[in-house]
Amino acid sequence: MKQFINTRETLVTEAINGTLRTAGGRLARLDGYPHIKVVIRTDWDKSKVALVSGGGSGHEPSHAGFVGQGMLTAAVCGEVFASPSVDAVLAGILAVTGRAGCLLIVKNYTGDRLNFGLAAERARAQGLKVSMVVVDDDVALPDLPQPRGVAGTLFVHKIAGALAEQGADLDAVTEAAHRVIKGVVSIGMSLDTCTIPGSPKEDRIPHGKAELGLGIHGEAGIEQVEFSSAREAMEMVVDRLAPNIGPGPKVALLNNLGSATPLEMAVLAEELIRSRIGDQIRWLVGPAPLMTSLDMRGFSVSLLSATKADEAALVAPVGPWAWPGCLPVGEVAVEPLPDGLTPIQPIPSKNAATRDFIERCCRILIEAESDLNALDAKSGDGDTGSTLATAARALIGALDRLPLADQTQLYRAIGLELSQTMGGSSGVLLAIFFAAAGDASAAGQDPNGALKAGLDRVQQVGGARVGDRTMIDALMPALEALQNGLAAAASAARAGADSTAKITQARAGRASYLAAESLAGHNDPGAEAVARLFENLC
Amino acid sequence: MKQFINTRETLVTEAINGTLRTAGGRLARLDGYPHIKVVIRTDWDKSKVALVSGGGSGHEPSHAGFVGQGMLTAAVCGEVFASPSVDAVLAGILAVTGRAGCLLIVKNYTGDRLNFGLAAERARAQGLKVSMVVVDDDVALPDLPQPRGVAGTLFVHKIAGALAEQGADLDAVTEAAHRVIKGVVSIGMSLDTCTIPGSPKEDRIPHGKAELGLGIHGEAGIEQVEFSSAREAMEMVVDRLAPNIGPGPKVALLNNLGSATPLEMAVLAEELIRSRIGDQIRWLVGPAPLMTSLDMRGFSVSLLSATKADEAALVAPVGPWAWPGCLPVGEVAVEPLPDGLTPIQPIPSKNAATRDFIERCCRILIEAESDLNALDAKSGDGDTGSTLATAARALIGALDRLPLADQTQLYRAIGLELSQTMGGSSGVLLAIFFAAAGDASAAGQDPNGALKAGLDRVQQVGGARVGDRTMIDALMPALEALQNGLAAAASAARAGADSTAKITQARAGRASYLAAESLAGHNDPGAEAVARLFENLC
Repeated sequence: MKQFINTRETLVTEAINGTLRTAGGRLARLDGYPHIKVVIRTDWDKSKVALVSGGGSGHEPSHAGFVGQGMLTAAVCGEVFASPSVDAVLAGILAVTGRAGCLLIVKNYTGDRLNFGLAAERARAQGLKVSMVVVDDDVALPDLPQPRGVAGTLFVHKIAGALAEQGADLDAVTEAAHRVIKGVVSIGMSLDTCTIPGSPKEDRIPHGKAELGLGIHGEAGIEQVEFSSAREAMEMVVDRLAPNIGPGPKVALLNNLGSATPLEMAVLAEELIRSRIGDQIRWLVGPAPLMTSLDMRGFSVSLLSATKADEAALVAPVGPWAWPGCLPVGEVAVEPLPDGLTPIQPIPSKNAATRDFIERCCRILIEAESDLNALDAKSGDGDTGSTLATAARALIGALDRLPLADQTQLYRAIGLELSQTMGGSSGVLLAIFFAAAGDASAAGQDPNGALKAGLDRVQQVGGARVGDRTMIDALMPALEALQNGLAAAASAARAGADSTAKITQARAGRASYLAAESLAGHNDPGAEAVARLFENLC
Repeated sequence: MKQFINTRETLVTEAINGTLRTAGGRLARLDGYPHIKVVIRTDWDKSKVALVSGGGSGHEPSHAGFVGQGMLTAAVCGEVFASPSVDAVLAGILAVTGRAGCLLIVKNYTGDRLNFGLAAERARAQGLKVSMVVVDDDVALPDLPQPRGVAGTLFVHKIAGALAEQGADLDAVTEAAHRVIKGVVSIGMSLDTCTIPGSPKEDRIPHGKAELGLGIHGEAGIEQVEFSSAREAMEMVVDRLAPNIGPGPKVALLNNLGSATPLEMAVLAEELIRSRIGDQIRWLVGPAPLMTSLDMRGFSVSLLSATKADEAALVAPVGPWAWPGCLPVGEVAVEPLPDGLTPIQPIPSKNAATRDFIERCCRILIEAESDLNALDAKSGDGDTGSTLATAARALIGALDRLPLADQTQLYRAIGLELSQTMGGSSGVLLAIFFAAAGDASAAGQDPNGALKAGLDRVQQVGGARVGDRTMIDALMPALEALQNGLAAAASAARAGADSTAKITQARAGRASYLAAESLAGHNDPGAEAVARLFENLC
């Protein structure tokens, strides 16, 4: 079994229970499990026309997910892909229908038509006003006298729901539903079949193919077509829809049949709007899962020729979260890139002592290149020395353009140079170190305090602490000791670096993936680099 | 390729364009494709603290789907499962950050930490107030110093977003984010891996197994466990979460990792609430896709120890549709079945002529049993005669309890009898016929008019018309002719029944699935039954 279910027999009742528990008290069900599975609004006073829909389960959020203010009053749920019984439908009607009457919205499948139809008769015999509409929006089979009802049903739920909510009478709501049904066409496409719960998956669609014109119950599409891209897929869908729509603006509904990812659905939305009928599409519902077919990796497009009143009904707010709204379709809004992405180059200035100090630091790191590489080869990919030396050489080459006379700007400029010349995580972390030191210096910190602030930021961003076997094991004690002079700092850095040889479980960086034996007995190369820097500066 | 995409390289930019076109003008992107993919609110005036998040794509609706009032101000999108660049993050920060500053919400992955971290420094160097929090809610690996950031990130977006929306300053928003991060734990489980767009699917999880403690980038879970049911799956997840939460009420977030169906997610919600920690769960976000991993068939549960202020922040309304709300968890509300499900038995009454008439009709149909069966065997399963005869025998047996003296009640009573004794679609349709005739009779129609009204309803519910090769081909002309006497009706019924032998394409009922050669030359058995009835009544 490859589904999160308990048993096939309890699937629908458990799912309805789960839905009710998490609906914030807005939904209830009728007593009568397992045969009668009816979900109703708890905020319903029967003063307006009730809307009852339903059918087999497996199409969620249809239909229970659309029960709520402004949409359905009750959803009558069958087992997966099986029509609910006459008794279940009748129970739904009787539970929610007052003097204003009730509209049944039925998808065009024989079982649903008959069971909802007979339930309607039985309700009428009890004096209730009940009307029934049958949705048949699927244009997959152009000559079929009984086209299937698919995702276009949502337009009926929404538009009839809005009218009922506004207090329209049963005749007006029914007439609107008839008009919507006449004006809507749909077709679906899928790359894979759905998995019936508790059954193995049928492997019907070969690689490189898609099924066009499929139903929502796992039945085969009318045609297996070559599939190569989202664009061509949408073109084929549009080719089937276009002959069935007249001119004039349309509302589209882009339905996820189950397991197409949101990325795919967004690409399909883009292709629909860019298609040859795209300029007719003024409003869009979705992309969203609206009338699914279990886990089918497919989509369907429904198009409605909507009146102004329909548009108003479609955009009216509703209670059910599953309704994604109906939004105007537009161009992609592109705003210019903000200023400040290209860093302002600092104004170069001179300071012989600072220049000499930076150059000394760089030479020390260049000199340590092969030693540090050798050390890194024991626990990494052997390039720590070269990474640091390359950055050091680049920094020496940049000395003429550095703001050597301005400590704050100098930190920032070094950070910028390193971010541009030194690759890898260490390059980003050193860039952060100097940039943060620059900030601290701008805020009035002395050089030692600024460097400590830089280290704080490196720890926050990089996530490493003392003892994690990184350069911080040397740098942190060195900066702590720096107030007592360079010799103290060097001695502290050395002790810190040497301590890393005893850390056999790295907790940050690439070495954290290595076993203890690869780490024991030799220093972390980053920490060693820091120790050598301070020692040689003495 | 088994995805609706065009190319791997254009997937994310096309998906963002599709998202923007269908966002009703509420979202824009920054110029800078393909490297800079930043989605921003169009209704943003920089007067409040900005919230910037992002990371690799493939987690939709995270993060672009949560950009909007009350949640994120900008989403910085990388390629699928790849961190966005420093420049992209910086562009996002600069585009939306005003004097109130900006909070970066980063999931704990090295690439995201470093790129968001360095971008933050570069923004600070330009004088902007920027703080950054790192979400590390995954408890899959209990000893990991750097737990991953997964779906618990949504709590941070929502709570920090609500505070920012209310006008809280950057320190307060950051502090709340830190507090939420400290209080949230998550873990995921999946029955299958995800499919990287444009790549074949890794087949890692054997049948009967699930992966527990997996990340959101297709990386393996910490453990492959036996999988047998939704209940046991949720128990294992709860076992991992329980040791990491203290006492007291929690807010849970039930995340669909991709292609678990809504039915499965609802069952998992039920199991979570019924689990041993269920009574601690006061509020629930979802079930919904919130932080997905492409098409992974899995789920994750996040738990937050929330303050009253957090709860208020979580329930505050927001702009983005992808946020499903945070609702109180409750018992399953069950309402009693309505009265009227058990039909009221009519009060029996006597009328010798009517009794005789009904009995004659029944005998005619009983007599025709084998002939009609033989006819049906040519185009169906050979049971039309038996179905009608069985119903006729039952009706004769019911004569004593029928309201024979009351035409209206009699129609209804016959409909009820037929719905209970006659199986199949034809039973339902005849039940509808008589029930609707009863309604019409109640409304004042004469017997002929009532029967016509019954036929109208049968056509509406069953969808068949004259010429579709059904009993309507005989019944309709017979009822039309009935005003001219029974003989005229019989003659019309016969002509109609015989016409069905020439209809080689049935357009309704089971015969619509048959080829022309199976239908030509013999009458539809239902129409034949009607003809015989009228002929024999003469």
